[in-house]
Amino acid sequence: MATPINFQQKFSLLSEHWSPRVIAEMNDYQFKIARLQGEFVWHSHADTDEAFIVLEGCLRIELRDAVVVLNAGDMCVVNKGIEHRPCAEDEVKLLLIEPRGVLNTGDQGGERTAANDIWI
Amino acid sequence: MATPINFQQKFSLLSEHWSPRVIAEMNDYQFKIARLQGEFVWHSHADTDEAFIVLEGCLRIELRDAVVVLNAGDMCVVNKGIEHRPCAEDEVKLLLIEPRGVLNTGDQGGERTAANDIWI
Repeated sequence: MATPINFQQKFSLLSEHWSPRVIAEMNDYQFKIARLQGEFVWHSHADTDEAFIVLEGCLRIELRDAVVVLNAGDMCVVNKGIEHRPCAEDEVKLLLIEPRGVLNTGDQGGERTAANDIWI
Repeated sequence: MATPINFQQKFSLLSEHWSPRVIAEMNDYQFKIARLQGEFVWHSHADTDEAFIVLEGCLRIELRDAVVVLNAGDMCVVNKGIEHRPCAEDEVKLLLIEPRGVLNTGDQGGERTAANDIWI
C-alpha cells in the first residue's frame, strides 16, 4: 500500500547528526533522511552511485579536485568510486537515495560508521 | 563529475504537462521531473516500484481501493503491479525516481505515452 511520507514529520523524529534513517524503499533502493553538521570523513562507495537531495541548508560535497555546493532544491549524484567528503557549516537536512546496504562511510569504515538499515 | 542540479532551473526548461524529463542518473535509475495537471490514465508497472516526490502543488494518486494525497514535501512509493492514476486539479511539480526505461503509461500504453529517456 502506497503511504504518504512527509519529510518534515520524519525529521521531527531524528535529532542526531550523521545518522541516516530509512523512510522508504523502492525495489532494492532506499530513501534515507539525514541531518548533517560539521565535516564527515573522506570515503567512496566502490559499487554504487549515491544521490543527494538537499531539503534545507547548504551542503558542500568536497571532491579531490572540486567542491559541489548544494542548496535546498538542489541534488547531485556522486558516482561510484569517487572519493567525497560531505561538509555543512550549519545544519543540513538531506535526502539520500542509494541501494539497500550502503554504509555511510563506504569503503572507509571507522568510528563515524552509522548503524545501517534503521527505519524511522 | 558530480554536478549540482537545481530543480527549479530544470522546470524553467519544461512547460509541457505529462512529459517526464530525465535530470540525473544513479546506477541504472533515473531522476525525472514532470509537470502534471488533470487526470492521467490508469496503469501499472509490472516490473518495478516507482517513487513520487512532490515539489510543488498537490498530487492525488488514485489506487483501486484508496487515494494517496501528496503535498509539497511528501513522497510515496507505488509498488510494482499496483494500478494507479495520478491526478492534479492544479499544476503539480513532481520528481519521479524509477529504473531507466520505464514508460509513463506502464503496461497500459496508448496515446498518453510520453517519449522516454529524454534529458533536460
